[in-house]
Amino acid sequence: MAVMANQMTDLEIAQQTKLKRIRDIAESLGLQEDEWEPYGHYKAKLSLNIMNRLSTKPDGKVILVTSINPTPAGEGKSTVTVGLGQALQRLGKKAIVAMREPSLGPTMGIKGGATGGGYSQVLPMDEINLHFTGDFHAITTANNALAAFIDNHLHHGNGLRIDPRRIVWKRAVDLNDRALRHVVVGLGGPAQGVPREDGFDITVASEMMAVFCLATDLHDLKQRLARIVVAYNMDKQPVTVGDLGVEGALTLLLKDAFKPNLVQTVEHTPALVHGGPFANIAHGCNSVIATKMAQKLADYVVTEAGFGADLGAEKFLHIKSRLAHIRPEAVVIVATIRALKMHGGMAKDELHTENIAALQAGLANLQKHVETIQAFGLPFVIAINRFVTDTDREIKTLIDFCDMQGYPVSLTEVWEKGGEGGIDLAEKVLHVIENETNHFAPLYDVNEPIPEKIRKIARIVYGAKDVEFSAKAQQQIKQFAEFGWDKLPICVAKTQYSLSDDPAKLGRPKDFTITVREWKPAIGAGFLVALTGDVMTMPGLPKQPAALRMDVDENGNAVGLF
Amino acid sequence: MAVMANQMTDLEIAQQTKLKRIRDIAESLGLQEDEWEPYGHYKAKLSLNIMNRLSTKPDGKVILVTSINPTPAGEGKSTVTVGLGQALQRLGKKAIVAMREPSLGPTMGIKGGATGGGYSQVLPMDEINLHFTGDFHAITTANNALAAFIDNHLHHGNGLRIDPRRIVWKRAVDLNDRALRHVVVGLGGPAQGVPREDGFDITVASEMMAVFCLATDLHDLKQRLARIVVAYNMDKQPVTVGDLGVEGALTLLLKDAFKPNLVQTVEHTPALVHGGPFANIAHGCNSVIATKMAQKLADYVVTEAGFGADLGAEKFLHIKSRLAHIRPEAVVIVATIRALKMHGGMAKDELHTENIAALQAGLANLQKHVETIQAFGLPFVIAINRFVTDTDREIKTLIDFCDMQGYPVSLTEVWEKGGEGGIDLAEKVLHVIENETNHFAPLYDVNEPIPEKIRKIARIVYGAKDVEFSAKAQQQIKQFAEFGWDKLPICVAKTQYSLSDDPAKLGRPKDFTITVREWKPAIGAGFLVALTGDVMTMPGLPKQPAALRMDVDENGNAVGLF
Repeated sequence: MAVMANQMTDLEIAQQTKLKRIRDIAESLGLQEDEWEPYGHYKAKLSLNIMNRLSTKPDGKVILVTSINPTPAGEGKSTVTVGLGQALQRLGKKAIVAMREPSLGPTMGIKGGATGGGYSQVLPMDEINLHFTGDFHAITTANNALAAFIDNHLHHGNGLRIDPRRIVWKRAVDLNDRALRHVVVGLGGPAQGVPREDGFDITVASEMMAVFCLATDLHDLKQRLARIVVAYNMDKQPVTVGDLGVEGALTLLLKDAFKPNLVQTVEHTPALVHGGPFANIAHGCNSVIATKMAQKLADYVVTEAGFGADLGAEKFLHIKSRLAHIRPEAVVIVATIRALKMHGGMAKDELHTENIAALQAGLANLQKHVETIQAFGLPFVIAINRFVTDTDREIKTLIDFCDMQGYPVSLTEVWEKGGEGGIDLAEKVLHVIENETNHFAPLYDVNEPIPEKIRKIARIVYGAKDVEFSAKAQQQIKQFAEFGWDKLPICVAKTQYSLSDDPAKLGRPKDFTITVREWKPAIGAGFLVALTGDVMTMPGLPKQPAALRMDVDENGNAVGLF
Repeated sequence: MAVMANQMTDLEIAQQTKLKRIRDIAESLGLQEDEWEPYGHYKAKLSLNIMNRLSTKPDGKVILVTSINPTPAGEGKSTVTVGLGQALQRLGKKAIVAMREPSLGPTMGIKGGATGGGYSQVLPMDEINLHFTGDFHAITTANNALAAFIDNHLHHGNGLRIDPRRIVWKRAVDLNDRALRHVVVGLGGPAQGVPREDGFDITVASEMMAVFCLATDLHDLKQRLARIVVAYNMDKQPVTVGDLGVEGALTLLLKDAFKPNLVQTVEHTPALVHGGPFANIAHGCNSVIATKMAQKLADYVVTEAGFGADLGAEKFLHIKSRLAHIRPEAVVIVATIRALKMHGGMAKDELHTENIAALQAGLANLQKHVETIQAFGLPFVIAINRFVTDTDREIKTLIDFCDMQGYPVSLTEVWEKGGEGGIDLAEKVLHVIENETNHFAPLYDVNEPIPEKIRKIARIVYGAKDVEFSAKAQQQIKQFAEFGWDKLPICVAKTQYSLSDDPAKLGRPKDFTITVREWKPAIGAGFLVALTGDVMTMPGLPKQPAALRMDVDENGNAVGLF
């Protein structure tokens, strides 16, 4: 059956793209022979020695891609990230895309890939979306090895006096598996371990993933691993990985995964795809080491943060930037007409019809995120990711709004046209980098009291009136100060769909309060997670999982992946 | 500190070896550019297309390495396998070593690597012993994705009417984790799945691993996956992967792992290291596809079966050989003075002292395994794997015994001397291949009744008087006939330490009976597992796991791995 080009699936476009050998991509970055290892012909792992060789080279400029609050309509933030990288390359700039690795759970479950789309993808998308170079498997293994060491310690006399009811380290799988959310382990009698309640998180929600992504080098990785709190003892004092003495073994399990992965886009722009923490329970961006290495290898690094600016960008700027001394030069805020109409009150199945009123009502969501980026003192450009159902009137309405507010805006068509569809965006981004003053500063200081830190996030970033704390959360804040954990940045676990902690409140809610029901200290990663509402750390599969469509054809190629 | 060569650890020897680039190894095998993919500079995955290109090429000769019943003293079967491959290469033969991949569980737990030792190792041993090319992670993921699909089916209405009490598909991790042996999943209320008893096996004990290792190509892999029985429904009828409709997705998860891994030995002999099922609950040898591919790429394939000849070799010859039409040309039976002395009654901590009487008493174990190989009609050579504590008198005693019986025997020193230490063994193996008649035939026909098949194994291979069946096992035999499963070969899950099903009976026990307490049908793999005694499918960690010694040095190299 003949199909038109724009009717091809992402997988078909990916499989039709003639890739360059990864050697060519590595050489285009000036990498030396011993600085990269091939994983197949189109993937490579990069040596950490690159950071030493290029230590005195000035860092490339980081462009952070974020978005309005996501909706089921989809925003295409990854697609814009890749498209912008390709556009910069078309303009003759030395650019790298830095992105997260996808998780297998959602892939087998419900959603499309996390590798961009259309003619703005990182490739080979099928391999990246399946096992890739095995990083997540290594992280899962380190996570579960640690769990086994804890239970083994209990079994062999429990010298550290761990309270089995207060073990906070959970097991992990990189799958959607609701039946593993709440389990009891150690059943079967005295030879089979100590019975206790436990649970599994999806790997991307684990602290192991967050630690991996925030470590600046192997030494720092080991130090962070040692600091992870796995349990509390009978005196309610924290027990760490260092107490168990297994930080060396965990580092060994992670050392190869820790090397950033080099791949390419549809247009052969180099891309570092590495690490992938959730943007609610964790900080939601690719590894620090990949971003830092990309800065050494290119003049422009286009990188993405998870979910909307209230979660991903806020955490990029408060956690990753602070830790790794990364100052973005500009922020791209992705919006779609469809998603803005949903924020304006339309139902998903009506989005194909023109609705200027809904669009105008939804603009408030975009405006709030712009104000957030302005509060951080950063130059920005709004990217409209165009869909075929968008009408000219709708697009004009959005552009007129931006013009009126004085917001730089660009209409992009990177899904259909690749880098060509992002040239205008790239030019505008370069323009704001060169012409606008960057006043970047975090919105809170880590030395402020914990309640003050999260209040600043909630008020300035979410537009909340105030933050309330449950009795438990208040008690934990006191405890954290006793343990010396109160100088850490905050990582808010909040619904991605709303600026508030109520996923039903779309648009720009007002007069709302954020409620912190509990804290989850992530001492290895180095932040305090504030749990607001219910946070899903292990998704379930839908009744008809995407896996039912998947297969391998007679030539061994992936079928039905997307 | 200066150390003598023979005092270096396996890891130190491995790290001091100057490896050839995997490209050179691939080219030495005549592989075309598109027939292999590098994974780093020293590992590669080989394309399944090689089998098509070389389909008319005569198969190389298979040499099967087995041993006496293993003891805690260690036999060095992998070391002899590698050493023999190196020796054949030194004699100018085109040889390949085919071995199993190691499991991470034992590596982090207690034992040394499964990659040979000394100057007879497959390299890079640290990478092979850690994540290697990710095959086991892919198998674990496929295993657990299937478990998630089953629980998801229960959760969403259970259209297949699966009895939650009769789900036989367990989850897996490639770790030693006793706390996961018996668990309850699906707790937490109606949104969190259906509560039920479950358990985790170590990945190498899973049927997923056995299926992977017995599939002859991707199509066969998918067919086998579809046949896996995961549960029984409310009418006690089997429910398969095909009923769930996920064999395509599982094949997709396994397709890259299914390509054999090419590495090299210390002396640059090519080695295919691929798959790794247990030799009790499963059939205990590397993948069929790796052995068949090795036969196309070399004139001699030296391959290993797990545990002693009563388990590994019996299963190789009855399951793998039958399925894949592989006729070994000769068998090497590995024995050590130390292990024979243990079979003769000595305690492990006395083995360094000379004891001719114990040695002579232990020879009965060796003799039984020789008789087994003779019963299969196969030429053989006994390989004495020399240890420094062996005295000349002891070695003379063993050689005299072999001479008197007319058994070909060779004293090997492959740990210390590499291939040079196995030249005599290689010459003797070549001699028996060229001069002795091969009468290879299986000891039972798959069309015989189930009790008859296992009785032949027990009587001829173990030297048992008879086989008894529990009431449950008898009832299962009837049921298997009803389901049409009675024409499958048998896979006995028995202790590796004894010819009997009692691990304490060393040497050559007589007048014993084997008791089958239960059957475990592995319909995807294509065999019926007979459970005798307790079979460990999830090991535990010792009080001081090997992981406590492990680390990464300042150059990113593995430390303390072995």
